[in-house]
Amino acid sequence: MTNIVDWVAVDWGTSNLRAWGIAPDGSVALERQSAKGMGKLTREEFPAALIEVLDGVTAAGGGALDVLICGMAGARQGWLEAPYLETPTDLRGLLAGAVHPTMPDGRFAPAILPGVCQKAGADNVMRGEETQLLGLAALEPGFSGMVCMPGTHSKWARLSGTRIDHFSTAMTGEIYEVLRTHSVLRHSMNGDLDGPGRAEGFIAGARAGLDHPEQLLGTLFQVRASALLSNRQPDWCAGYLSGLLIGTEVASNRHLIGQQAVPLIGSPSLCALYAQVLEMIGATGLPQDTTNIVLAGLKAARSYAA
Amino acid sequence: MTNIVDWVAVDWGTSNLRAWGIAPDGSVALERQSAKGMGKLTREEFPAALIEVLDGVTAAGGGALDVLICGMAGARQGWLEAPYLETPTDLRGLLAGAVHPTMPDGRFAPAILPGVCQKAGADNVMRGEETQLLGLAALEPGFSGMVCMPGTHSKWARLSGTRIDHFSTAMTGEIYEVLRTHSVLRHSMNGDLDGPGRAEGFIAGARAGLDHPEQLLGTLFQVRASALLSNRQPDWCAGYLSGLLIGTEVASNRHLIGQQAVPLIGSPSLCALYAQVLEMIGATGLPQDTTNIVLAGLKAARSYAA
Repeated sequence: MTNIVDWVAVDWGTSNLRAWGIAPDGSVALERQSAKGMGKLTREEFPAALIEVLDGVTAAGGGALDVLICGMAGARQGWLEAPYLETPTDLRGLLAGAVHPTMPDGRFAPAILPGVCQKAGADNVMRGEETQLLGLAALEPGFSGMVCMPGTHSKWARLSGTRIDHFSTAMTGEIYEVLRTHSVLRHSMNGDLDGPGRAEGFIAGARAGLDHPEQLLGTLFQVRASALLSNRQPDWCAGYLSGLLIGTEVASNRHLIGQQAVPLIGSPSLCALYAQVLEMIGATGLPQDTTNIVLAGLKAARSYAA
Repeated sequence: MTNIVDWVAVDWGTSNLRAWGIAPDGSVALERQSAKGMGKLTREEFPAALIEVLDGVTAAGGGALDVLICGMAGARQGWLEAPYLETPTDLRGLLAGAVHPTMPDGRFAPAILPGVCQKAGADNVMRGEETQLLGLAALEPGFSGMVCMPGTHSKWARLSGTRIDHFSTAMTGEIYEVLRTHSVLRHSMNGDLDGPGRAEGFIAGARAGLDHPEQLLGTLFQVRASALLSNRQPDWCAGYLSGLLIGTEVASNRHLIGQQAVPLIGSPSLCALYAQVLEMIGATGLPQDTTNIVLAGLKAARSYAA
């Protein structure tokens, strides 16, 4: 691999960052990673973190190397706040909305892409997912429909080509974590959470969530009650909690899912669980290669210059 | 007040304990409190905690002083696990199901009342609330209907006289706390949470929860999005979160609420919020004096000896 590239694509999330050097022919010439996610940096530490991860990388044509960044680096508590495009919005306008943080020297010319917000109906925000959605639009030209992006804060977006019409956020992943770690339910998940009971618990929880999403505050407590009364083990309880939350999330979006398959963008293990729950309601989830999607999104964003 | 009593009533919860010395005529002769709740004690520390809080208290007739205890002291992680009566169950059977922990000397004769469990349909458990329900039945003879007990783990029980037919648990209070403290929503609730915006946020959240209880995982994120996009302040956000959760809880029990008023047993401030939300759906909540209810329950439990 060479350190001389045309430009650099960066996905700068809360917990880490990934950078890809793109060759003049569009191929990936180098790949770098760093644990210096937005959540671990003060505003002043971003330039050094970028310089560190791009150590020795230079521009093919000489001069400043373009670095195109998506994700939480553009959040209010990040490097430099990037604006939001407001739905409905054509994602080909991402680069035109980018902000340009200053660097201590002229080697790198970073630009941070905007997020997308929604004000009509209910307030909502995304940062990073918009670039993935543009990547999906680039890889699947003409796709129109719901896209599900499982994670800490799952996004469900209605995409029409390169346009986002509407989206919502479900706090599914974060609620799983805070309940498992900080609530009374932790007493029932003290042990091996990945034992053979997990799959059975997952299906029972998903069924409860799909059937009665409006009862979530009540069914959550059944994790504890089932451990006390039915001797459910930690693996079953963890599976039940996970299935209950994902089932509830899928049920609350059920009216938006049409006949076509739902692309799933997220970690492979999480996407497999969502695909399983979608199958329980007769729908189909299609897990995507998230790295490909992000790269395609950053490339597409750069290609639609203002 | 005298230290010579007929027996002692104790409500031993997770975070503290309250004890009342009952005179032969049934009046309260003395009242004691301690911060030594079940959650702060190892199994071995319970006898000393009881002796400490009852320092100097003796039986009117001489001999061992009866101490009747309800609540979490009877939990698996408490002093001595008390059994559960299973729904449907007549609460006049509480004393017959009590367990008797041993003491280092013969001054006190403690008995811990059982909790109530439910296995038909969905597993569920309560400890302490069953005594309050018996107290309500004693104070309102012939009452039949839904009772709401707001708190960390809110209970909704269908009571017919002294019989519990069915109940559920909503993790409303605990979810408010873990989200406020440990989730991304904490960034939007960093400041004065009791400002004038709280009441307005509460109503907006309650409306959202009542209208769409099945969308909870999504509407929760609007606390954060509203702070970012609509400049909502910490007091509004805290009110919205509280209203959203209580609204969702009330909506999920709406089909069980009949024409008559719903007794509310819990802290006065929390009961007032539930009464407000019940009013939004045209129902009526009737806050009870919880101390009276607990005392009446312990007295009633003692009166129905096996």
